[in-house]
Amino acid sequence: MPVQDATRPTPQTTMSSSPSPPTTANGGITITGGENEDEWVWNQIKAEARRDAESEPALASYLYSTIISHSSLTRSLSFHLGNKLCSSTLLSTLLYDLFMNTFSSDKSLLSATVADLRAARARDPACISFAHCLLNYKGFLAIQAHRVAHKLWALNRKPIALALHSRVSDVFSVDIHPAARVGKGILLDHATGVVIGETAVVGNNVSILHHVTLGGTGKVGGDRHPKIGDGVLIGAGATVLGNVKIGEGAKIGAGSLVMIDVPPWTTAVGNPARLIGGKEKRKDEDVPGETMDHTSFIYVI
Amino acid sequence: MPVQDATRPTPQTTMSSSPSPPTTANGGITITGGENEDEWVWNQIKAEARRDAESEPALASYLYSTIISHSSLTRSLSFHLGNKLCSSTLLSTLLYDLFMNTFSSDKSLLSATVADLRAARARDPACISFAHCLLNYKGFLAIQAHRVAHKLWALNRKPIALALHSRVSDVFSVDIHPAARVGKGILLDHATGVVIGETAVVGNNVSILHHVTLGGTGKVGGDRHPKIGDGVLIGAGATVLGNVKIGEGAKIGAGSLVMIDVPPWTTAVGNPARLIGGKEKRKDEDVPGETMDHTSFIYVI
Amino acid sequence: MPVQDATRPTPQTTMSSSPSPPTTANGGITITGGENEDEWVWNQIKAEARRDAESEPALASYLYSTIISHSSLTRSLSFHLGNKLCSSTLLSTLLYDLFMNTFSSDKSLLSATVADLRAARARDPACISFAHCLLNYKGFLAIQAHRVAHKLWALNRKPIALALHSRVSDVFSVDIHPAARVGKGILLDHATGVVIGETAVVGNNVSILHHVTLGGTGKVGGDRHPKIGDGVLIGAGATVLGNVKIGEGAKIGAGSLVMIDVPPWTTAVGNPARLIGGKEKRKDEDVPGETMDHTSFIYVI
Amino acid sequence: MPVQDATRPTPQTTMSSSPSPPTTANGGITITGGENEDEWVWNQIKAEARRDAESEPALASYLYSTIISHSSLTRSLSFHLGNKLCSSTLLSTLLYDLFMNTFSSDKSLLSATVADLRAARARDPACISFAHCLLNYKGFLAIQAHRVAHKLWALNRKPIALALHSRVSDVFSVDIHPAARVGKGILLDHATGVVIGETAVVGNNVSILHHVTLGGTGKVGGDRHPKIGDGVLIGAGATVLGNVKIGEGAKIGAGSLVMIDVPPWTTAVGNPARLIGGKEKRKDEDVPGETMDHTSFIYVI
Amino acid sequence: MPVQDATRPTPQTTMSSSPSPPTTANGGITITGGENEDEWVWNQIKAEARRDAESEPALASYLYSTIISHSSLTRSLSFHLGNKLCSSTLLSTLLYDLFMNTFSSDKSLLSATVADLRAARARDPACISFAHCLLNYKGFLAIQAHRVAHKLWALNRKPIALALHSRVSDVFSVDIHPAARVGKGILLDHATGVVIGETAVVGNNVSILHHVTLGGTGKVGGDRHPKIGDGVLIGAGATVLGNVKIGEGAKIGAGSLVMIDVPPWTTAVGNPARLIGGKEKRKDEDVPGETMDHTSFIYVI
Amino acid sequence: MPVQDATRPTPQTTMSSSPSPPTTANGGITITGGENEDEWVWNQIKAEARRDAESEPALASYLYSTIISHSSLTRSLSFHLGNKLCSSTLLSTLLYDLFMNTFSSDKSLLSATVADLRAARARDPACISFAHCLLNYKGFLAIQAHRVAHKLWALNRKPIALALHSRVSDVFSVDIHPAARVGKGILLDHATGVVIGETAVVGNNVSILHHVTLGGTGKVGGDRHPKIGDGVLIGAGATVLGNVKIGEGAKIGAGSLVMIDVPPWTTAVGNPARLIGGKEKRKDEDVPGETMDHTSFIYVI
Repeated sequence: MPVQDATRPTPQTTMSSSPSPPTTANGGITITGGENEDEWVWNQIKAEARRDAESEPALASYLYSTIISHSSLTRSLSFHLGNKLCSSTLLSTLLYDLFMNTFSSDKSLLSATVADLRAARARDPACISFAHCLLNYKGFLAIQAHRVAHKLWALNRKPIALALHSRVSDVFSVDIHPAARVGKGILLDHATGVVIGETAVVGNNVSILHHVTLGGTGKVGGDRHPKIGDGVLIGAGATVLGNVKIGEGAKIGAGSLVMIDVPPWTTAVGNPARLIGGKEKRKDEDVPGETMDHTSFIYVI
Repeated sequence: MPVQDATRPTPQTTMSSSPSPPTTANGGITITGGENEDEWVWNQIKAEARRDAESEPALASYLYSTIISHSSLTRSLSFHLGNKLCSSTLLSTLLYDLFMNTFSSDKSLLSATVADLRAARARDPACISFAHCLLNYKGFLAIQAHRVAHKLWALNRKPIALALHSRVSDVFSVDIHPAARVGKGILLDHATGVVIGETAVVGNNVSILHHVTLGGTGKVGGDRHPKIGDGVLIGAGATVLGNVKIGEGAKIGAGSLVMIDVPPWTTAVGNPARLIGGKEKRKDEDVPGETMDHTSFIYVI
Repeated sequence: MPVQDATRPTPQTTMSSSPSPPTTANGGITITGGENEDEWVWNQIKAEARRDAESEPALASYLYSTIISHSSLTRSLSFHLGNKLCSSTLLSTLLYDLFMNTFSSDKSLLSATVADLRAARARDPACISFAHCLLNYKGFLAIQAHRVAHKLWALNRKPIALALHSRVSDVFSVDIHPAARVGKGILLDHATGVVIGETAVVGNNVSILHHVTLGGTGKVGGDRHPKIGDGVLIGAGATVLGNVKIGEGAKIGAGSLVMIDVPPWTTAVGNPARLIGGKEKRKDEDVPGETMDHTSFIYVI
Repeated sequence: MPVQDATRPTPQTTMSSSPSPPTTANGGITITGGENEDEWVWNQIKAEARRDAESEPALASYLYSTIISHSSLTRSLSFHLGNKLCSSTLLSTLLYDLFMNTFSSDKSLLSATVADLRAARARDPACISFAHCLLNYKGFLAIQAHRVAHKLWALNRKPIALALHSRVSDVFSVDIHPAARVGKGILLDHATGVVIGETAVVGNNVSILHHVTLGGTGKVGGDRHPKIGDGVLIGAGATVLGNVKIGEGAKIGAGSLVMIDVPPWTTAVGNPARLIGGKEKRKDEDVPGETMDHTSFIYVI
Repeated sequence: MPVQDATRPTPQTTMSSSPSPPTTANGGITITGGENEDEWVWNQIKAEARRDAESEPALASYLYSTIISHSSLTRSLSFHLGNKLCSSTLLSTLLYDLFMNTFSSDKSLLSATVADLRAARARDPACISFAHCLLNYKGFLAIQAHRVAHKLWALNRKPIALALHSRVSDVFSVDIHPAARVGKGILLDHATGVVIGETAVVGNNVSILHHVTLGGTGKVGGDRHPKIGDGVLIGAGATVLGNVKIGEGAKIGAGSLVMIDVPPWTTAVGNPARLIGGKEKRKDEDVPGETMDHTSFIYVI
Repeated sequence: MPVQDATRPTPQTTMSSSPSPPTTANGGITITGGENEDEWVWNQIKAEARRDAESEPALASYLYSTIISHSSLTRSLSFHLGNKLCSSTLLSTLLYDLFMNTFSSDKSLLSATVADLRAARARDPACISFAHCLLNYKGFLAIQAHRVAHKLWALNRKPIALALHSRVSDVFSVDIHPAARVGKGILLDHATGVVIGETAVVGNNVSILHHVTLGGTGKVGGDRHPKIGDGVLIGAGATVLGNVKIGEGAKIGAGSLVMIDVPPWTTAVGNPARLIGGKEKRKDEDVPGETMDHTSFIYVI
């Protein structure tokens, strides 16, 4: 489970020997980005993969085929997802094409990918490199595949969006309905068992641990799933049900069952969940979705 | 998560323009069926798949190979499961044969399959067609494979039943012991992480969400797992342990821990679970396993 | 869910017609072992597989390729894991080599494997043979792969350790960070959704059910995950967060959220968890990790 | 290259300890057969495979999956061909089904298969068992697949017949047009590079070595390929072009180019071919297609 | 073996109900072409595939994945070749990319492909549709892969050109060195065993049967392989060795060994080959490479 | 087709900047060798592969997995053959093991491999590097697999030797009976269609082109195939039948049919073959199997 290690320099600092693009201050929930930054991250990934290939020849073949041989992050990611999600009846070439075409049709998908890579790198102390995340984080890969499925859904290509959805659920045990709207800078940590329903909305800079459910409560069709604000942190095994609103900067404790609105900058814990804290961001307060601070759960128990 | 949308007509009504077989009223926990109805559902599936293949050429190959090219639902399902569950050491041809032979040996398996398809279609608003369920619902596919494993177990072909069990657990993250007895008209929604133990019994028209455990409590061998009555609804992440009896029409709240009997038409919520409501069906009461109504959990909190 | 069935003889007794090696009394948390015993278990496995191949020709090919054709347990396990964990970009031959070389480099890995096989056989009434565990238990297989990943991590071969970690998470939905230290005689029962963090430590003779998290609480880098003592039992869906100490012989109830130390021979239940019982082993007390007794959870509720 | 070893007893004699069905004398070009004999050959094959599996554990998995686990020769052959000829776009399950259904629809296919097995066993000293031929002889396998393709062609299912034709040409380098008519008791020895055109006809008990072409001469559509009589032997690399008639019991020398009719019991050698010998069977003459005697080619040079 | 059937209308005529592009007279060795024609052929292919999918559901999946689902002939061919030539160490996605990029970089490749398709359709009576050739003719597929390998060779990307060369030789048994220059409108009929050396040149409208060698004679490095003029026909099993010149419109008899120049409009037959006929095209003479007339070989014997 | 280019320096000279082991003069049919030389060739291969990986990133994955990641030529070759020859029923891990174990059991196998690599490099001007041969030459790979099959045959492991034989014939279209004895320093150039019978013997430093048959003449069992002396060259499409002796340094013309003994240093050409030249090596005569000089065939015609 991730943590912002105070003694660990931010990526920008750590890698300052590499040509880093000018970035604005990374405070609040702002997402820095742009094509320069995307390029910089891709260059980092290739450099990391080359270093790893050098040190571990047994893995070099894998690193070349998935990363180093590719001319862009889009191509590398499409290749990797195509090979991860293919089956005997859904060929890798078909999926590769689908990913390439969809990523190429909307540049915002790539910048969301880069924001997610930065999120994993910044929030999860176990994430030792961008390449590590790109290759190995099933939460990261599931979200990228979801964004493509969501795009296809929006184009009314529902059957293929659902086929992709199904493959992601089989391969990664992550079940995000293609209609769900998911922001940028998302960390799905560990990710196994995450379920996000059809009308759910997830804001930017949200961190969600494994076994989290954003589900419905039945009976009412239409808009029936949770709306998660920016910067929210949802602990492992939490279940949020119904068309409830989890406000910006809120924190949902591990194992909680939440069926009510949670105001901004508020913590919900327990089964059923009780609320702690308040609707406004304190001056010095950190964004839970970014700091991944689960410790406050203790205090409230 | 599913819901019986009041504004959504039942399948029978929706598709009344198609040649629908005569059906009896679908009240209570009764399951309508018969060969005519099985045939009708298979025809629906093929029509849906043809329509989808037309609208999405990229998926047509998949739809033809898994559905349209097959002469029966048994064949289509056996093909699909064989290709989903095969591995480099358990070939698809072997599994295909195993499924074909087992389904052919007992006609009741197919009618259970059809009842499950109807359950998904009727209870889950996210299920947009029978074909969608057949192709993509890992809960549905896991149950069909389980029924075959259960049949093999009953014939004392334990090693192959357990091999199948293991493949289903690997591929779908659904772990149903081959000895467990499971009824008809079951919806395993989302399904990831469901665990059902060796001596568990699940009635008809039951709906079970993801991460649900029907487990043992150790110490006592033999009959040591829950018995789930007809029409029960079990919410996401609920854990039911021991040889307890969950009565007909009961409801188990999401995230609950249940280690006691739950009387019929009663709701259990919380960790540990408390009981609400009563042992007899109220005149106007709906069957929880069919309505998928999770909202009452809120009232009891 | 497993149980030590009082009426079921221990493996040693059951199979006393087979040439069983001299074993010391299996009391307390002691692990008997040695090369003789490893050999004895391997011989049992082959005998079981031959018997199953005889009775079930359709499975014989699988049993020969994974077990009977191999000259040692190391080879059989390396073959099986290589074929289970391979992908189109990480070939089975590469993984087979990696497993073979690592197991050969450290004999203690094999004796840990054997201890795990004995644990499953002794503690889980659903485990009908050693071969059953070797072939089908994803928790067992995930731990064996983890031990190899851990060895590679210790040799600073981090990228390949993480690639292995990722494959185990994809295929088995079991997520154990390669740096985590795990003892011998471990049973991961059902195993889906288990998450064990980077700095976690798991003692010997521990039993962990599915959906269990040994996670961090964020904010603090470095040593931030739970330390699980010998003989501990952790129930399904329990979440243990932070650098807390779960003492020897403790029991964590299903669905519990534990963010505090749990003294030895103590039970923690609920969300948040309360403690029951005491720090010293009563004279007649069984080891929870071995008896798998979940029933006491009921009494404390 | 095969030979009828005078010192080698015929299969019937060799295996007389096995329950052999009553057979008529095997003189001339007569083919003995019938269901009893088919069953006897299948039992031989299973016995051979079991013996080999016993002596070579590394191969046991292969032998079980392709032979021992199957209930009939049809099933075994369909499985083997399905797995040999499948590709990423033509799945083994589809091909298995196609073979099973076609073989089942016409019992004469199986008796032709058995006649081919007997031919290989009787004529090729390098053929050490029926199982050896069934598993390893690409000429044998190519003919069996051709017979299925031919059947499909006759049913006007041309596209799938041609797809099968193409797979056989890719995998075995044997190119027999689906429309070509091929008799029983055929030996395609070594088989690489054999080409048999659309309107060619091959009689019974014919032996054809590798690199043999039965081709057209262009210019004239319709019936444009050779007609090969019963009992003919065609040496390696021989090229027979045009709608010519190769009479019963004729012999075509290795490397010959034949563009003229060859009368019965006559030998053709050279490029272009000259004829030797005469149109009637001498009293003591053996059938070339059965004796595989290439030596007479020498005398005529 | 192919033939220009006098009674069979040319494709243009046959399919005149389809919208056919304006074409110039198809006399002599002229190749008609242009983007319109390429498009027309692609439309024909799709129409043929759709018709076949309709009539043969078992093949529909294959036809959709290889042809109907693609937006262009380039894409369809790249997909088909990628899946045919891939191996466990050279992934289909890599090859697909390589084919797509190379075809896109040089439009002349596609028009050569179309010329080859027309050649097969016009010259081989066994070729029943363009789709039949595209899907099933290994000679056609080998040449298309060769053109890509040749392009890569010309760009000094020799290792990957040779890897492609090797895969084509493994899969199709057609061995064309990437440096060899091959024209348009080529028919490699049956194709198994064709070998074309490094410095060989093959003109336009050439037809080459199976087992044909265009080889070197050793001793002299550099330019050491045959130069084949436009419109040449080379019969099955012919061997042409050394830097010899086979003139325009020449004919090489089946099974011939040619180590000398063959003047234009001349026939070479026998081992060693003798020459017949003369250096100038007779007024009414057909182009051998187009008419596929092998009959004249007979007259010269 | 190969040639000893006079202007091309021998490998020893070309690569003299690399640390080359001391070698004796390479005159006559002597094969230099020894462990030092084997090591030197392996180092060359790795250097070539690294250079190619650098220049062609798309191929780097392939080069790392097949060559660069391996610690020895034995391992690299076993991996490459295992992946080339595997099928859905004969897994790559099984074959890899079989190759590794057999190569390790007899060091002479590796030195024969190295001699073959040197033969290809020295005799075939199209062979641009040792790595090129190791990766892409199906004749080279077929011989290496044959040597393993031959070893298994000698150990009376006939069923697995024949299974390997069959795979080589399927994948490479090279059919060498496992019992055939083949020397060192062999070049099978192009290799498609080569057939070598059960009792054939091939000496050292022999070069054999594609479509060559060393077959039997039937009728006589036992020792019935050709014996090929050291340094022999056999041209493309030549057919040698019966237990005939082809003397040291002999040359068999392309397309010849040989059914008689050919004395040493003699050339046989034609169908049927005539002999030219004499039984003793002329003082200045080169070894045909090494020079690959096919030109003399011309003079004798």
